[in-house]
Amino acid sequence: MTLTGKMLIGQHATAGNREAIQAINPATDSALQPAYLGGNGEHVAQACALAWAAFDVYRETSLEVRATFLETIAAHIEALGDELIDRAVAETGLPRPRIQGERGRTCGQLRTFARTVRAGEWLDVRVDHAQPQRQPLPRPDLRQRHIAVGPVAVFGASNFPLAFSVAGGDTASALAAGCPVVVKAHGAHPGTSELVGRAVAQAVKACGLPEGVFSLLYGSGREVGIALVTDPRIKAVGFTGSRSGGLALIQAAQARPEPIPVYAEMSSINPVYLFPAALAARAEALAQGFVASLTQGAGQFCTNPGLVIAVQGPALDRFISAASGLLPNCAAQTMLTPGIASAYTSGIDTLTGHAEVVAQGSATEGPNQGQAHLFVTQATAFLSNEHLQAEVFGAASLVVVCANNEEVRRVSEHLEGQLTATLHMDDDDVPSARALLPVLERKAGRLLVNGWPTGVEVCDAMVHGGPFPATSDSRSTSVGTAAIQRFLRPVCYQDFPDALLPDALQQGNPLRLRRLLDGQREA
Amino acid sequence: MTLTGKMLIGQHATAGNREAIQAINPATDSALQPAYLGGNGEHVAQACALAWAAFDVYRETSLEVRATFLETIAAHIEALGDELIDRAVAETGLPRPRIQGERGRTCGQLRTFARTVRAGEWLDVRVDHAQPQRQPLPRPDLRQRHIAVGPVAVFGASNFPLAFSVAGGDTASALAAGCPVVVKAHGAHPGTSELVGRAVAQAVKACGLPEGVFSLLYGSGREVGIALVTDPRIKAVGFTGSRSGGLALIQAAQARPEPIPVYAEMSSINPVYLFPAALAARAEALAQGFVASLTQGAGQFCTNPGLVIAVQGPALDRFISAASGLLPNCAAQTMLTPGIASAYTSGIDTLTGHAEVVAQGSATEGPNQGQAHLFVTQATAFLSNEHLQAEVFGAASLVVVCANNEEVRRVSEHLEGQLTATLHMDDDDVPSARALLPVLERKAGRLLVNGWPTGVEVCDAMVHGGPFPATSDSRSTSVGTAAIQRFLRPVCYQDFPDALLPDALQQGNPLRLRRLLDGQREA
Repeated sequence: MTLTGKMLIGQHATAGNREAIQAINPATDSALQPAYLGGNGEHVAQACALAWAAFDVYRETSLEVRATFLETIAAHIEALGDELIDRAVAETGLPRPRIQGERGRTCGQLRTFARTVRAGEWLDVRVDHAQPQRQPLPRPDLRQRHIAVGPVAVFGASNFPLAFSVAGGDTASALAAGCPVVVKAHGAHPGTSELVGRAVAQAVKACGLPEGVFSLLYGSGREVGIALVTDPRIKAVGFTGSRSGGLALIQAAQARPEPIPVYAEMSSINPVYLFPAALAARAEALAQGFVASLTQGAGQFCTNPGLVIAVQGPALDRFISAASGLLPNCAAQTMLTPGIASAYTSGIDTLTGHAEVVAQGSATEGPNQGQAHLFVTQATAFLSNEHLQAEVFGAASLVVVCANNEEVRRVSEHLEGQLTATLHMDDDDVPSARALLPVLERKAGRLLVNGWPTGVEVCDAMVHGGPFPATSDSRSTSVGTAAIQRFLRPVCYQDFPDALLPDALQQGNPLRLRRLLDGQREA
Repeated sequence: MTLTGKMLIGQHATAGNREAIQAINPATDSALQPAYLGGNGEHVAQACALAWAAFDVYRETSLEVRATFLETIAAHIEALGDELIDRAVAETGLPRPRIQGERGRTCGQLRTFARTVRAGEWLDVRVDHAQPQRQPLPRPDLRQRHIAVGPVAVFGASNFPLAFSVAGGDTASALAAGCPVVVKAHGAHPGTSELVGRAVAQAVKACGLPEGVFSLLYGSGREVGIALVTDPRIKAVGFTGSRSGGLALIQAAQARPEPIPVYAEMSSINPVYLFPAALAARAEALAQGFVASLTQGAGQFCTNPGLVIAVQGPALDRFISAASGLLPNCAAQTMLTPGIASAYTSGIDTLTGHAEVVAQGSATEGPNQGQAHLFVTQATAFLSNEHLQAEVFGAASLVVVCANNEEVRRVSEHLEGQLTATLHMDDDDVPSARALLPVLERKAGRLLVNGWPTGVEVCDAMVHGGPFPATSDSRSTSVGTAAIQRFLRPVCYQDFPDALLPDALQQGNPLRLRRLLDGQREA
């Protein structure tokens, strides 16, 4: 398939007329063809008009039609074959197996949402039958279902060019909910975005859906991004990226005449707690696991372990020493973009001014190389210096040495909201872990024992979310089947004749849902 | 029980030191003793510190303890007996049977949430077992539950001194979720608030809960209200009131270093559609039902039918004529406060400048009397004049006369978000109603057929919510058991030893919940 450099406004390939976006192969710093001319407000308006026109039809498609659509997208992405893999590798500098795995994750995610759509639990159907004899007043017949909120704007992320981008988790969950999607492609991987976008558009056509169900735009955040978030036909936003980027979108969404929710996943340093018994038993093994998690994918994960918290002592010294011994064997890796590489370098420079560098990875030739860094500081310094909990996106981590459990708790209470918190512990650590748990539950969306936070499973129980600034809405997750709930709202139907009720609410329960029926869950 | 004029900061009756708030009996314009000195930022900080100290304990109380607590509150409110009824009548001018009914609703609501807490579905437990053999990577054990978001600020509403005030729906659902609550009493019914507040505080004590689970503050919105919403220990806000009041709280909540959700239920004019066949068959009966709904409680309901939409013709003329004939027989009623009465008068004045007054209720002697008003305008005027869809809180309604179905649709699309939309229809109207339904689903939280929007049932299926500006968050309801979901967030536990898991997630399922277990709902 030849890349066209064009946007997709519904089924129409449309060239932009603003400044060109061109991918850079970060491994070589060379530009990749074609150039993608940015769109403008008019293109945004066209895409939103189509999305709006599609909305009432798309949101009422049957569960089967919508599930099949998601599966068809997955099949069309797989049909892109090596072309997609080659392009994504070239645009991101990520290793080929990583991109192949991510494609599997992306298509698996679409199929998981297809299953979720079919199961229909997201409709959350509740039926309270009329009680005409009730005193002092009769009760009417009341039935609730959930419907899609409206067209959703999705902003692709740089670090997962497939799984958090054009047909990633935000798009999959919004489409599953019944929301048309307008994607603003991330400028770092426009070719990957075009390939995937065309796969989605083909699936729209193959399934006979209105073309406005999906559009793909290119352009600047300031012009296309803000126009998208402020278009009155857009009713929710999904975003994964920087804190500043997320906050700008939230501000724009709040300033609308009709404010809308923005689900922004922004920044997290993912504290890892090393409890004394675990540390004493296996400081060196922990260091090995830690360094592997830290340096995976050049550390470019939202769940990268950027903070290690432990009580001082010989066991912690062993951990630091072992990690410091391993780090020089870790070769620098190509980062996603020149911008990310230079932000990483300047983040490292800032941290170096505030904490002690105890180890770093080895340098490699070539542009945009990210060298792992390990820092150490004392809890007292951490508690008084906000620079020390700023996210440095990449393979940088800071060990915070605490005098005792009380200081561990103070450091924990001082943390901003996080996506994850990890506990390395043995049986003897259970009391300390139990005491800390309430703090961690308040601070993070996912808590792990004896694992590493990188690696986010797509399943029912996953929470990839957490209190601000990890995300803008701690009540939600952006990964896993519960992500669909972000794009739904409840509607109640009172005393409706059966013929006018949507299928999900009809007396005969044609969708065979397990309803909450007069206060009882159906078996 | 002698009213003290004091706030309740946990278990401590505390006198404020700011400007006094004194209730006015709106039926007589006389001041009611005692005066309530307003609190200041220091009082807010004390209440929030107690709430914060209580949070980790309270949110982990057993389902049984928390349910019993809610039932104990209800019992303590009932034990207040006539003193509560007398005071609420004096402070609101509402008829005694209405207040008695509202007490029943309030206590019933608390007991309904007790049942919801015990049933435990709100925990939304999901378990995905480990798959150690999975290729290419093993799957960890992942378990999700919901926990309380943190202490919640509740702002009492003026129009339901019991059901939407100190121990009303926001408080009941937040306490059910496991959130301590700090209430800012509405200045119009401070004595009612004190009585109910003391009942709640007694229940806190009787149940052996930490005192910070509940506090009750008095004071100005500008000082106490903003201090409460901006206190870092407050994690969500419940509000029912004016659009300007709600927007001010939202703005303050968004400007915090850590923004928090505000659930504000603000304004709605609740369109009522009269379809041709229904209108032709029973214009006079519809007029009777309409006038009863319009004038109930002096029209001081968020779901008051402030807008009637129908196609022109003799049947609509009959409806207008019948309603106009009935209205003069409706005596003016005492409104809740002098402020509400004067806002109503000025709203009527404004509407009178933009639409034709076709009927009004009869005047009555005495202060703060609200006289019902019926206006008529043409759809073309409605579409071009935003004054015509501003909420006038009270018994005012506007009939919008449309040339045809197409104009009905245009008027509907032009509407802001609403709490309700009502369809009066017969079998012959089904096609027209069906065609309009998608628009109404997008515009409102609850749709009714052949009923009247006043009267909001507390049950599982209720949605008292809707798109902005009806509420600030269309994904939620403030009435009914789903209201608990506003104050919860998901947390995921990965590879936790059973001993460290909360009860809800333990392998043996000690709470006997119907979990989502490896993708299947348990029977």
